[in-house]
Amino acid sequence: MASPALRALLRGCRGRVLRPRGAPPGRGSAEVVATSERYAVRRLPFARLGDSDVAFFERVMPGRVVTGEEVKPFNVDWLKSVRGCSQLVLKPQTTAEVSQILRYCYERNLAVTPQGGNTGLVGGSVPVFDEIILSTALMNRIISFDKVSGILVCQAGCVLERLSEYLEEQGFIMPLDLGAKGSCHIGGNVATNAGGLRLLRYGSLRGTVLGLEVVLADGSAVDCLASLRKDNTGYDLKQLFIGSEGTLGVITAVSILCPQKPKAVNVAFLGCQSFAKVLETFTTCRAMLGEILSAYEFMDEKCMELVERHLKLSSPVRGSPFYVLIETSGSNSTHDEEKLNNFLEQATASGLVTDGTVATDDKKIKTLWSLRERITEALTHEGYVYKYDISLPVGKLYDLVTDMRARLGQSAKSVVGYGHLGDGNLHLNITAESYSHSLLDAIEPFVYEWTARCSGSISAEHGLGFKKKQFIQYSKPREAVALMQRFKAMLDPKGILNPYKTLPSAPESSTR
Amino acid sequence: MASPALRALLRGCRGRVLRPRGAPPGRGSAEVVATSERYAVRRLPFARLGDSDVAFFERVMPGRVVTGEEVKPFNVDWLKSVRGCSQLVLKPQTTAEVSQILRYCYERNLAVTPQGGNTGLVGGSVPVFDEIILSTALMNRIISFDKVSGILVCQAGCVLERLSEYLEEQGFIMPLDLGAKGSCHIGGNVATNAGGLRLLRYGSLRGTVLGLEVVLADGSAVDCLASLRKDNTGYDLKQLFIGSEGTLGVITAVSILCPQKPKAVNVAFLGCQSFAKVLETFTTCRAMLGEILSAYEFMDEKCMELVERHLKLSSPVRGSPFYVLIETSGSNSTHDEEKLNNFLEQATASGLVTDGTVATDDKKIKTLWSLRERITEALTHEGYVYKYDISLPVGKLYDLVTDMRARLGQSAKSVVGYGHLGDGNLHLNITAESYSHSLLDAIEPFVYEWTARCSGSISAEHGLGFKKKQFIQYSKPREAVALMQRFKAMLDPKGILNPYKTLPSAPESSTR
Repeated sequence: MASPALRALLRGCRGRVLRPRGAPPGRGSAEVVATSERYAVRRLPFARLGDSDVAFFERVMPGRVVTGEEVKPFNVDWLKSVRGCSQLVLKPQTTAEVSQILRYCYERNLAVTPQGGNTGLVGGSVPVFDEIILSTALMNRIISFDKVSGILVCQAGCVLERLSEYLEEQGFIMPLDLGAKGSCHIGGNVATNAGGLRLLRYGSLRGTVLGLEVVLADGSAVDCLASLRKDNTGYDLKQLFIGSEGTLGVITAVSILCPQKPKAVNVAFLGCQSFAKVLETFTTCRAMLGEILSAYEFMDEKCMELVERHLKLSSPVRGSPFYVLIETSGSNSTHDEEKLNNFLEQATASGLVTDGTVATDDKKIKTLWSLRERITEALTHEGYVYKYDISLPVGKLYDLVTDMRARLGQSAKSVVGYGHLGDGNLHLNITAESYSHSLLDAIEPFVYEWTARCSGSISAEHGLGFKKKQFIQYSKPREAVALMQRFKAMLDPKGILNPYKTLPSAPESSTR
Repeated sequence: MASPALRALLRGCRGRVLRPRGAPPGRGSAEVVATSERYAVRRLPFARLGDSDVAFFERVMPGRVVTGEEVKPFNVDWLKSVRGCSQLVLKPQTTAEVSQILRYCYERNLAVTPQGGNTGLVGGSVPVFDEIILSTALMNRIISFDKVSGILVCQAGCVLERLSEYLEEQGFIMPLDLGAKGSCHIGGNVATNAGGLRLLRYGSLRGTVLGLEVVLADGSAVDCLASLRKDNTGYDLKQLFIGSEGTLGVITAVSILCPQKPKAVNVAFLGCQSFAKVLETFTTCRAMLGEILSAYEFMDEKCMELVERHLKLSSPVRGSPFYVLIETSGSNSTHDEEKLNNFLEQATASGLVTDGTVATDDKKIKTLWSLRERITEALTHEGYVYKYDISLPVGKLYDLVTDMRARLGQSAKSVVGYGHLGDGNLHLNITAESYSHSLLDAIEPFVYEWTARCSGSISAEHGLGFKKKQFIQYSKPREAVALMQRFKAMLDPKGILNPYKTLPSAPESSTR
């Protein structure tokens, strides 16, 4: 079934016991070169896929079993930073099919990587070796929506943007929004506990997800798909699967509480002369905008340079070392504009803000948001990007960028900081023409040690996936990691679900 | 150490293998009479407390080991509906002491019931037999509060109202509020996943609790006391302990995100001529009040009768079959009052609301809230109360009350409904002069079957504790309960933590 070229590739992959992992050679290339032994991991002794296995899956879901050249895009992540060599993608449509797949794989000891929209940034959604890819792409049915309660129930493979559009027609919105909305699946969002741009206002998925249907490693389905705001009957099992990156079970359906669509949305894009002023602007606007504040994002001037240079975006506000995007969402446009104007007057009069623009119409709002949302994309044009997603006490947020910039000096092309300031979440990105061991060694473990000293999190929202799992100890004590490993062993005793992800490899992992 | 009378009581308790549980004889009595075999449960083969055990605890925490007559109030719940016969209350001050206690009990196979403010309504916080009571009463230290982030870290035994007062001085509030605030402990709130009056606005504890410190059954402490809004490093262990009613671990400290204190609060108390109008008023006010809506509570006329008769409260709004309490909380009093007035005009003009009053000053707001908050207390004056805490699709919320009233006819003194309508949470209460088997048989399992048919929850916020644990299957599928039992067995293999609670007894529980 596979092309000769792919077959050669697969043979190479299967033959390698030690698989060094690393970095892409540069922008736009679909090829991935293994350049670092930092992420070295041994293939665990799972069974190898055979013809009879493929034949079985073909019987279970005829026409929805992908082999050969078409598997290739499923093996590489969005950043093209990690690559697996799976030979098989399965596209179930129902929970019963997911159960059949996992029951079979569990018995056969075949490893499985669940994959949603494959937009993750830590290599969590692609296989490391030859794991079977279980794609939720065809599980894209909206099951129900109740306009009185605002509760949506849908299959895991629904694309976030499609759900948003569906809800907006009915006067509601999704409680989360993120740059990858056009591709990411709600099941993947939940499996990675995605944060994004609305968390400041609507809280995390741990509060808004009301129910889940999950298939465990052995194929048994657990139906906790409640559509109730409150339910205190026993332990809240679904929470364990939220953010477990497909290592404890495959999420097949989601019940989620959706807020009403705000009648008025305003965006202010402002320039600040220092990070101290960015912080003071935040506390001022939180006090003055109160319940209508729905986003407080920041970016430094280097980010602005990159989106202007690489994406040809033009900003109406320029010449400041820091920029802030403030969004309000409310039920009364007159009230909201009055609050926003009062705030802007005070912020300008007190010198917190030196330049700025306000948008109330959809088009200009989108334009301003794109300056912030497309930074990730702009960065990929720079060459190689070292990406860090850090939670810190908000007052120290930018110190890490400053310290890193001083530390790396000329060895980095750029060191930039942006993110969800209102949530204490910094996206620290370091670029270079190409990947280098020595630069990585200058960054890590420095960045993790710095974060740990401030009791921060080394992954605020991206998760650990494959690329960060060895660093969990910087944010979690040994006892907690040990407990996580016990949960994993209990729910997936053979370890077939998304192996090599989230939890650190045991020193003797090859003997598992 | 114990008085002769108590010693006799304890002897009686220890000698009984089968312990029938039931109902109090009536208002105001401290005595509890066993009247029902519905809750019959066998004592599991835990060790019996001996003098050497008490001596050990005295060495660990001298002066904070309670025995004798003083143990009595810790053995009975707030409703006086269940009673244990513990001989020992321990009052640790630190996590290290909790660890020492549990390590010892685990080795000795002594059962332990954690107890906070003992305000629960399902018998979760008192021993069933002679379990040692581990009280958090002296773990009442506020560890830190960060005014920028609004994150509070404190020990588990802090009383909710004390925390509220502390925060209000700094311009913040707790994200939860409930009638029992004067006694309940934050650790108990988290252990029972308390809902309460602010859930509509600030969401559940699953979103606002950022970190926990927990001591497991074997005495090992797990420190997940993060103070970060976002942290995706591994599984979110703390979630399993939220709502687990002390059966999986003892919560010793809590980190919680607190909202800013609203600058303006308004309360409207309205009369509606039918439950359909209560519902329509809800959708109208949700649309018109939007982000400032912070509570939508309802009560029927029977509730009003009871608070007026038993508590001598007087309502400024009378003569309606239903009453609604709407609270707004916002950052601009002019805007909020304008929104509220617009809504009230529309609700009155369209006949949704036939009578009403609005309060903006603290004193009148408290008076109006007490009409709703003190219903529970008024009910206890009626005689015996059968209490149900049900989640339902909001449209069907009151049908259960109507159906129950029709079913019970003259055999009940009153059948009343009130609750957090905005969250789909009904408190159904049935009163009678005294407890009777036949009335209970008329109510149960009817009430649970009715709820299950609507895919509701048989415990929206009160938990299962001792009194509801056998009914979990009405809201959770068999596979989910089995999985919960595996978690319990993994984290507490000897079952010493709050035994006989939350999960149903296995048919052969006595052989565990």
